[in-house]
Amino acid sequence: MAFLKVVPLEEALRIVNSFKLKPRVEEVSLDEALGRVLAENIVSPINVPPFDRATVDGYAVRAQDTFMASESDPVELKVIGEVHAGEEPKIKLAPGTAVYVSTGAPLPEGADAVIQFEDVDRKDDTVIVYKPAYPSLGVMKAGTDIPRGKLVLETGTRLGFKETALLSALGFNTVKVYAKPKVAVISTGNEIVLPGEELKPGKIYDINGRAITDAIRELGGEACFLGIARDDEKSLADLMIKGVAECDMVLISGGASGGMRDLTSSVIEKLGRVYIHGIAIQPGKPTIIGVVDGKPVFGLPGYPTSCLTNFTLLVAPLLRRLIGRESEVRKVRKKLVHKVFSVKGRRQFLPVKIEGEKAVPILKGSGAVTSFVEADGFIEIPETVEILEAGEEVEVTFFG
Amino acid sequence: MAFLKVVPLEEALRIVNSFKLKPRVEEVSLDEALGRVLAENIVSPINVPPFDRATVDGYAVRAQDTFMASESDPVELKVIGEVHAGEEPKIKLAPGTAVYVSTGAPLPEGADAVIQFEDVDRKDDTVIVYKPAYPSLGVMKAGTDIPRGKLVLETGTRLGFKETALLSALGFNTVKVYAKPKVAVISTGNEIVLPGEELKPGKIYDINGRAITDAIRELGGEACFLGIARDDEKSLADLMIKGVAECDMVLISGGASGGMRDLTSSVIEKLGRVYIHGIAIQPGKPTIIGVVDGKPVFGLPGYPTSCLTNFTLLVAPLLRRLIGRESEVRKVRKKLVHKVFSVKGRRQFLPVKIEGEKAVPILKGSGAVTSFVEADGFIEIPETVEILEAGEEVEVTFFG
Repeated sequence: MAFLKVVPLEEALRIVNSFKLKPRVEEVSLDEALGRVLAENIVSPINVPPFDRATVDGYAVRAQDTFMASESDPVELKVIGEVHAGEEPKIKLAPGTAVYVSTGAPLPEGADAVIQFEDVDRKDDTVIVYKPAYPSLGVMKAGTDIPRGKLVLETGTRLGFKETALLSALGFNTVKVYAKPKVAVISTGNEIVLPGEELKPGKIYDINGRAITDAIRELGGEACFLGIARDDEKSLADLMIKGVAECDMVLISGGASGGMRDLTSSVIEKLGRVYIHGIAIQPGKPTIIGVVDGKPVFGLPGYPTSCLTNFTLLVAPLLRRLIGRESEVRKVRKKLVHKVFSVKGRRQFLPVKIEGEKAVPILKGSGAVTSFVEADGFIEIPETVEILEAGEEVEVTFFG
Repeated sequence: MAFLKVVPLEEALRIVNSFKLKPRVEEVSLDEALGRVLAENIVSPINVPPFDRATVDGYAVRAQDTFMASESDPVELKVIGEVHAGEEPKIKLAPGTAVYVSTGAPLPEGADAVIQFEDVDRKDDTVIVYKPAYPSLGVMKAGTDIPRGKLVLETGTRLGFKETALLSALGFNTVKVYAKPKVAVISTGNEIVLPGEELKPGKIYDINGRAITDAIRELGGEACFLGIARDDEKSLADLMIKGVAECDMVLISGGASGGMRDLTSSVIEKLGRVYIHGIAIQPGKPTIIGVVDGKPVFGLPGYPTSCLTNFTLLVAPLLRRLIGRESEVRKVRKKLVHKVFSVKGRRQFLPVKIEGEKAVPILKGSGAVTSFVEADGFIEIPETVEILEAGEEVEVTFFG
């Protein structure tokens, strides 16, 4: 095998960063855009509103016609027509005239103000104005909300309902987003059975397959769970070949045994190339990184917490890069709730739960399913550190 | 019409709470459970691990056989077989014997400890032990992670990848979740066109339809956008009838004009009953609540920010109740960044953006699309308050 020694995490990350995977862009209908990540800058192609718009029901006037109006000496204007919301005004205001407009209607030519109908009197085709209107009263001018040409959303924006609504308001019915990377997920081990199957003696239910599959989906990727490979080369090779054929990368969570680890490594070796055969971190040392048919293949540890920790450290950043969510902050600073001991020379990742401003270590050991279910993420304890004191500030990285 | 006067928000909420809608429960496959809300308590049907499990590769022994072992006087045990992960052990340990086990393998009967292979010597069918093993060394006892009968997840839990992984580990391949309430969404107004269509003079693109549709989806509901009703009774009645036939409730966002509001109200009146015809809040006074064919029908204001504010105040809590997410906290306390003036006697909801610990008011007026796009939520200013001072603590309710 190419490598048998363990390498620092940074070396593993360097390999991952060197993978020649490029984000793909696809155009989706706006109705399918929710939750996706924008792959283009959005510049408004229109003015919002597109025209000078009445914001009240009332009379569109030439403001200057009303400047002399007062309670004692009101101004009378001749009503020459109506414009309702959605209509194109075909009338033009001459001096001394007014047009009835409803809220949302475009102002007719010549008008520059709208007086609320409650503030005037109407008598046949005459409207009586008792006080001056200033230009722009009752009007939202074209483009005052969003002017044509304005950059409104940037590449990399996650589209929530506010953003899709904004795109709708600008007239977009399709939008360019990052395509979801396809990730094949394989569980391995003779002891693993799928939920719903009978739990025969010596067997346990799969957990990593589900955890990784759904973590990829939450992240915005498309996960294809290919099932469970047994502890033989053919079984694993078959699924790995299927994985690289159908997907952009393959994630294999190792059976618990050391033998399984060697199997993953030797199958990758036969089909492609192994770059990393162990990382100097605890837990999660037994991590394999290779390439088959130009597609990255990751062998993740079998213990659930180790598996998820290394997924978070190595795979999630790669997925985020492909989805345009690279800049997303997945860390918070908290205070350690009690003292924690580590071993000098060992770079440790410890699962923690967040409770308010506190980080509470989950000290169940990596074999326990509940460790990662109860934890929100993990903290890193460097090689040089033996003790973290209670109250010490730590950086928590969220799982996923 | 039944009511023409505006009512306090509390009265509107009382009506909404009186609607006889019950959460529905459905069983989905675990593969479709991500993001759904659990509608049952999950009690573990099995021990995890299901058996005493080796946590290292090595030799399963009777610990008592090794108590006298030392460097100078090692104990020799006869290796009588092997058990690998996934196998059912058929061997029983007699005194003085050991069995090779791989990580994850069940312990054979009689064994109570596993000594790592690195810590012993092997010579033919004999293993040489140099120090005592204590009972449970290298063993995870059955049920120590999760004992059978333990309540592990409660009704109302949102299923993230950690929870689906836990369900997998317990053998569940289906799970009961709250069914998604179906909500019909209708935009109204002669001036509204759908994105992708040509923007003729006097027209504007729909925004509320998209905002409400996607807000419902983010919330966990199923939204059916039925399109745009024109300003006539038949157009609106047709869509409303379709909405109540196909969905659990109907949301209509009003055209901007007062006339449209009356139309919504009179169509509900003809098809069912109007309960509320205006709420004493600003913005969003023109809000209609009624029932058609036993299904709630909401007429929301046309201005985007008002529409979304009232959706948040009135509809979202109802949806959360149906989805089992009632207890979700959607409020944070922040400090107002600058002084804000209100009008005595007016109960106002003001959109704000959150910046760190500050709430920044968005003072663009409810007609501006950008108000709600830039805002994260809103603060309430009671009737009795005229001024909120800079630095005052306010409660921000998130939109949606």
